[in-house]
Amino acid sequence: MNEFQLIRRYFDRPAPGAVLGVGDDAAILAPTPGMELVVTSDMLVEGRHFFAGVDPESLGHKTLAVNLSDIAAMGARARWATLAIALPEAGEAWLAAFSRGFFALADRFGVDLVGGDTTRGPLTLSVTLIGEVPAGQAVRRDGAQAGDDIWVSGELGGAALAVAWRGGRAPDASFDAIRYAERRLDWPEPRLQLGERLRGLASAALDVSDGLCGDLAHLCERSGVAAELWLSALPCAEALLPLRVRAPALFAAGGDDYELCFTAPRAHRAAIEALSAELGLRLTRVGAAVSGEGVRLLDVPGGTPVFLTHASYDHFR
Amino acid sequence: MNEFQLIRRYFDRPAPGAVLGVGDDAAILAPTPGMELVVTSDMLVEGRHFFAGVDPESLGHKTLAVNLSDIAAMGARARWATLAIALPEAGEAWLAAFSRGFFALADRFGVDLVGGDTTRGPLTLSVTLIGEVPAGQAVRRDGAQAGDDIWVSGELGGAALAVAWRGGRAPDASFDAIRYAERRLDWPEPRLQLGERLRGLASAALDVSDGLCGDLAHLCERSGVAAELWLSALPCAEALLPLRVRAPALFAAGGDDYELCFTAPRAHRAAIEALSAELGLRLTRVGAAVSGEGVRLLDVPGGTPVFLTHASYDHFR
Repeated sequence: MNEFQLIRRYFDRPAPGAVLGVGDDAAILAPTPGMELVVTSDMLVEGRHFFAGVDPESLGHKTLAVNLSDIAAMGARARWATLAIALPEAGEAWLAAFSRGFFALADRFGVDLVGGDTTRGPLTLSVTLIGEVPAGQAVRRDGAQAGDDIWVSGELGGAALAVAWRGGRAPDASFDAIRYAERRLDWPEPRLQLGERLRGLASAALDVSDGLCGDLAHLCERSGVAAELWLSALPCAEALLPLRVRAPALFAAGGDDYELCFTAPRAHRAAIEALSAELGLRLTRVGAAVSGEGVRLLDVPGGTPVFLTHASYDHFR
Repeated sequence: MNEFQLIRRYFDRPAPGAVLGVGDDAAILAPTPGMELVVTSDMLVEGRHFFAGVDPESLGHKTLAVNLSDIAAMGARARWATLAIALPEAGEAWLAAFSRGFFALADRFGVDLVGGDTTRGPLTLSVTLIGEVPAGQAVRRDGAQAGDDIWVSGELGGAALAVAWRGGRAPDASFDAIRYAERRLDWPEPRLQLGERLRGLASAALDVSDGLCGDLAHLCERSGVAAELWLSALPCAEALLPLRVRAPALFAAGGDDYELCFTAPRAHRAAIEALSAELGLRLTRVGAAVSGEGVRLLDVPGGTPVFLTHASYDHFR
């Protein structure tokens, strides 16, 4: 199988949302009048973002999901993706499973794969995603105000527990907790529906990819505010509850959860709770934006500081 | 230096053509009304697309240039780029030189770097480029007609000679030839001005990245025509002329030249020659589209076939 057969067999699918998809020097896209584009690129490297030998179907899902999560954090709708992939060898079973995972998620959110590149090399995956959002309505990181609530979607800590488990350094945890954690790590769910509905409700948002405290610090810096977070409020699965006090960093600084963290005026509390019920998605108030700078983690509102060994994941630390 | 300091120091530049550049979950772009987007992604892997230890400034140039070349081949104007980069270590001198080469070329063509990703891993570079073209006017691969002329910009064979030279398997060549060849390999010049001017003149186009015969075969397949190429007509530098008969594959099947190959009706010959003079860029008629399928290389028009060991570069061969 050569490079072009490989592309044709596994990655050349109809792209109904594009003028021209895979197969030319570049794809041709017709942006929707009145919309702005949001564009994000992420790169996943074997041994760093995922373990060697991971299930290729889940890897296909995750490669797209981490980019969709950035689009969700902007309040945009995902439209088009490109995929550049370096592979040690053109293994048919691996490619079939990878592309199955990738396209299953793409189809769920109406995303067209419109281009990319395949080459031989250490397993590396790079996706660029383009979304659309009504002009001027993107949810950015720089809109938080002192006094805003801080919210988190879904549950935290699962993915970080799975990373620790596979690395042989997990705290004691139940079988149920590990099974749940592995699913969270391998099959993250991008919060696209939520993201679109946060337009007009959230003052700022980002996705939690490197760890809540560290990610939130970026939002605070760009908004010119500080944040107070409450460990006891951080949402987590029932099976992980015993770990929240014993291993707080999993929840407050663990990466790979791909939940949305957003700020919103207090006046929007009822609307956000109603949205949570409507979407069937947990939305939890976990802290408050205050004046100053930095992120402080307290055990409870008005309580005592919790110290972590690190605030988030840094690829060059 | 952590990941965010690295981005700030080397990759976070003003992006005057974007609503929002580096630093949020995604960039925000306002497409120009009446334009379509063209989008392309390429990935460069150390040891495959470039030699380990290559000058990082030329690598920064080339990483962007190979993507700009795809935009040129569509007849579009380049606007925005993202860069995802995996690095074995965050070496400051390397990063400074790489970003200097990247931004020098970006500035020449008014391209804004609007986002990306940095991570640790085997040296891998992935760029996505977004360009704009008036709706319906992109130059695609599928418009060639039997009877059209086939043209090539610039000169062929230099980059392939440099690859052979560095790999220790070059044919005998002069010092001048090698010096020229290395410059062609390391500092390819994307033909953006030419590309934009080919709208309305060319019936089809692509860039020569994997080798003329192989690349042209893709154009022929999508257009439903065959091609006849004349080895004696393939443009090459004076210093390389002695090699054209001894090592025809360098010219007819060598990769990495990043020239444009395009088809055009005979009625446009004078206009194309005038354009060549205006741009100060050699444009050479190298063959003809004919009915049938496949690409045939002849020594001269109406002459005898030339056989090559391969038609183009294939990453999985």
